[in-house]
This record gives sequence, C-alpha cells and structure tokens, in this order.
Amino acid sequence: MKQELKRRLISLVEKDLIDIEAALHENLSPNLPLVKEIAGHLLFSGGKRIRPLLMLLSTRLCQYQGEDAIGFSTIFEYLHAATLLHDDVVDEAELRRGRPAAHTQWSRPKVVLTGDFLLARSLSLAAKTGLPDIITVMAGITEDMSQGEIEQMEQKGNASLTEAQYMTVIQRKTAVLLQGACKSGGILARAGKEKEAALDAFGYHLGVAFQMADDLLDYTAQADTLGKNPGADIREGKLTLPLIKALENASNEDLAWMLKIIADPHFNENDFKKLQELLHHYKGIEYTEKMAAHHVSLAKQSLGAFTPCQAMDTMMLIADYAIARDV
Amino acid sequence: MKQELKRRLISLVEKDLIDIEAALHENLSPNLPLVKEIAGHLLFSGGKRIRPLLMLLSTRLCQYQGEDAIGFSTIFEYLHAATLLHDDVVDEAELRRGRPAAHTQWSRPKVVLTGDFLLARSLSLAAKTGLPDIITVMAGITEDMSQGEIEQMEQKGNASLTEAQYMTVIQRKTAVLLQGACKSGGILARAGKEKEAALDAFGYHLGVAFQMADDLLDYTAQADTLGKNPGADIREGKLTLPLIKALENASNEDLAWMLKIIADPHFNENDFKKLQELLHHYKGIEYTEKMAAHHVSLAKQSLGAFTPCQAMDTMMLIADYAIARDV
Repeated sequence: MKQELKRRLISLVEKDLIDIEAALHENLSPNLPLVKEIAGHLLFSGGKRIRPLLMLLSTRLCQYQGEDAIGFSTIFEYLHAATLLHDDVVDEAELRRGRPAAHTQWSRPKVVLTGDFLLARSLSLAAKTGLPDIITVMAGITEDMSQGEIEQMEQKGNASLTEAQYMTVIQRKTAVLLQGACKSGGILARAGKEKEAALDAFGYHLGVAFQMADDLLDYTAQADTLGKNPGADIREGKLTLPLIKALENASNEDLAWMLKIIADPHFNENDFKKLQELLHHYKGIEYTEKMAAHHVSLAKQSLGAFTPCQAMDTMMLIADYAIARDV
Repeated sequence: MKQELKRRLISLVEKDLIDIEAALHENLSPNLPLVKEIAGHLLFSGGKRIRPLLMLLSTRLCQYQGEDAIGFSTIFEYLHAATLLHDDVVDEAELRRGRPAAHTQWSRPKVVLTGDFLLARSLSLAAKTGLPDIITVMAGITEDMSQGEIEQMEQKGNASLTEAQYMTVIQRKTAVLLQGACKSGGILARAGKEKEAALDAFGYHLGVAFQMADDLLDYTAQADTLGKNPGADIREGKLTLPLIKALENASNEDLAWMLKIIADPHFNENDFKKLQELLHHYKGIEYTEKMAAHHVSLAKQSLGAFTPCQAMDTMMLIADYAIARDV
C-alpha cells in the first residue's frame, strides 16, 4: 500500500523533479567555490523537493501557463535550505539527511553566511517575478521561522508545553514554508485572493501533518532509514505531540519517570525503549497519528473549490504520502 | 574645522534623525519580547543612521514627494543591523559601538535568528514599496556581503593580500549597503536608470571612503572614543590598507617584524606602538588618507548631474564627514 502510493506519486512527479533539480543547479551560481560547496552539501543531499513541487503544482492547479514556474519554484527550496543551515547551527544536530550536518564540516560562521547567501538567492528570484506579494510571503515566513526557533529554544526542556503551544511551534517552523510555497503558486498564477487562501490552507494542513509524521518517526523509525538518530527531539529538550499526549495520560509513577528523562536526557537504549512503550501505552503515538490523518483530510478538503486535474491528483497523493512515509 | 563640519551636518539632519528613530521603533514590532530585546540592544545603541539618511536624502535629491520615505528608509538600517548581528558572531568581537556585542549576552543561535528576523522585517517593508527593483538591490547586497565575509575569513592572516583584493573586500562588506541605500532612494523616486547609477556611484565612493577611514581609526583612535579596542583588525587577522601599503614599502628587517606580528598577533602594547610608527613611517597611513580623500571627491563628483538643493548640500557634508570623524 505504502509502496504502491510511493510508486504512483513518483511516476506523476518524476519529470518535474528532474526539471527542478536542473533549475536548482542553474540558479545557484555563487562567486565563491566554497559557497557552492557548503550550499551544495545540503542542497544536493537528497531532499524531497516538496516545496518547489508544491509551488509548481499550485500554479498548474490555477491554470498558469508561464514556462518560468519551474525556475521560480526553486525560491522555496533555497529558502528552505537557508533555514536548515541556520537551524543546524542552532540545534547542533550532528546529522542531516543521513550526512554530517554542514557545521560539523565547516565553521559555524561560514555555515551561517552560506545560509544568508541562499536566502539572498531566493530573494533575487522572487524579485524577478515582479510580484511584491511573493516577497511579503517570504518575509512573513522568515519572521515566523526565526521567532519560532527562538521560542522553541526558550521552551527547551519545558515539560509543561501544551498541545496548543506545540501547534504554534510546528506552524512556525514547518507549515509556514509549505503555506508560502502553495500560496505563491497562486500569486504567480494571478489566481485571486480566494484561491490563494485555499492554497494557503492546503499548505498549512499538509505542513502540520508532515511535521507530526516527522515527530512520530523520531520515536518509531530506525536510524538507517531516518538518516539521523531517533530520539533526537527529546535529547534536544524538544517536546513533541506523542510525548505531550503521553504525559497528559500517564499514571503518577510513569509521569515521574518521563519527567526525569526530560530533565536529564542522558538515557541509555533501554530507557529509550521504555519511553517508546509508554508513548504507545498512553496513546501518544495513536493520538498523533489520528491528528496527522485529520490534517491530511483537511488539506484535501481545502482543494474543493478547484477544478479537478492531474495537478490536483498529485497534490492529494502528496497529502497521503505526508503520513505514509518511512523517512 | 572638524567640529564646525559636525555642527553644520547635525543641524541639517537633526529633524530627519528624530523621524528615523521613531520609524525604527514603530516598524520593529516582533511578537517575542526577547527578539525586541536582542534587536534593540544593537539597533538603539547609537548608530549613526547613515544608511536611512542616505536613502531619504537620495529621494529628495530626485524630488520625491511621498511621505513614506522616512518609513522606507528604515529598510537599510534593519538590513545593516541584521548583517552586524551575523558579523559579530563571525568576528567574535567583544565590543560593538562601545557596548558588549550581542553574542556575549545571548547565545549565538539567538543572535543569528534575530539577525534573520531583522532581515525579514527589512524585506516586509521593501515589499510594501511595490517595487521589485528594491528587492533586487537588497538581494544583491546580501549575496555580496555574505560572500564577502566568507572570503575575508578565508583570507584571514594572509599577509600577501593585495590592494585590489582589499578593495573587493571593502566594497562587499561596506560599500554595497551604502550603494543600495542611495540607489533605492532613486528607485523609490522613479528617477530613472541614469540617476540611479549616479546615486549608486555616490554610495560606492562614500562607502569606500568610510571603510578606509574606519580602517585608519583602528590604528589611530583611542579605545574610549572608538567604542572598541584599536588594533582589532590585525588581532583578527584582517589586513587593511594602511598595513598593506606599509608592507609594500618596508625594509626587509621591518617587513620580517611585521610578518611575525601578523602570523601571531598576541602582541603587547609596545609592539602595537611600534607597528603604528611603522605604518606612519612607510606611508601606510598617509596613502590610505589620500585614497579616502580621493573617493570622497569622486563621491561628490557623482552628484554633478543633479540640481543643487539642500539634500545635495547635506550629502556633500556627509561625504566630508566620512573622513573627518573621530569615531
């Protein structure tokens, strides 16, 4: 079932992905080889290209005919890569997409500055659209993401994080970028405010579902498929929905044990196994799966006002894929 | 003479500076108090507001009548502050404008993210102009500055840096932002390509003169007027024009001594005094002063095509002030 979904999706987007890949290479063009190296390390390490795909599909859903859509779709991949480079420095994560994070190979300042360069690249392209609304979207994304990251740092290790606070965090750190990519597709196609809002809603719910699926994978996946070590979130003091829900439902004894792990996350493998069991036992996993599926269905509903077409089919499949993936 | 120049300049820009200050407060508006605190620490610590002033004066030189010029002029102060926050993390400088640099008070990731937030604020405002050309200018600035900083890091301690390489570095790290502020004033005023280019040239030569004056002050000023410790550049392995020129002219013996200092900049106060004497003796100071004055005169010439007015007088005074200041 999962494999079949993946196969259908790939057959639908295969050609676009090749075109996006070529455009990402073509539009990068820094003056310094070192910048190309640092940016390329992250950009060409097997990202899913969800953001450019979504912008591209959104333009098609709005019957946009311009041939520049592929080129412009790279805007959101460069912006995404810029935020990942800054995030890696923030998170001090060792691995990203199964490879050593950039800051483990180059000095942090160089990684930060390469992030700035990618942000600037993304802006240059956005300026070429001649549509200030797209810049407004990008500025909003960057404001939200930077503040979201700072807020998440402030909340580190806060065991009383609520579900509502979690929703704010994941909107700011993930959903805004997908919202922006979809909405900008509508803006590029001059689809009008109503359709832009529908695309924005699709991106929001898809982004929430994606992040919830990621947060689930951090507790359920294997290191070799995940491309990073599972349990990274709790080690970094990040409370995600599976744990938030389990804490709500836990007995006093299990609650105390989990709070101890959160307060001092130097746990061994047996501790992590026990934590995984508790997340299942107290329905943290189940609840998060249910909420992610709910947002997938809300995402699909958001597209109700558009005329059915292949782009819509593909977007529906992407929504299903958001929660049906192993990585 | 210096004092008289400063007095005249202040009387001309006093009211504008008050308006710019108010606009900087009004447009900042982050959601998080912490972001306001970190951004405010740098933004409201006595910057000269040269960049917003230049944009504002450039709009007036082009007879722009819009009342939004003050608000839009903050674009380049936010962008400048964003780059300063990222630079401080890069340089690991302890002091900025006589106060502890932001990263000594808050964690580096928070400082980097606040820089991102300010960049985004600056973009939001730029988008409100409805003029994609201004975004293109900003993107170009950010591309140049990020790559310029990386290049400067790569060149750290390189004792064979040439004058031409130095010129590229200072254009990218300083002049681009002044060029952008002046040019954007022209764009906002719809002044046409020719006048935009003239304003760009004014900003370039002014920026070069400013940076050369800064590089001179790093060898000639007192710590208490400078707001940071003199000799910071050589301690950070940055070769600037006074030293580059002195190296060119030095006897073998003095050359060897200076190369030793560059290679291992843990020198004492007597060493620094000797270095200052050598920079004078081998005309490094004199040559840099001459070049800075030359660029001031080129900046003034760039304004030749405009109709004389008070804004022009003020810009001419700013050009004089660039090399006549103690700080």
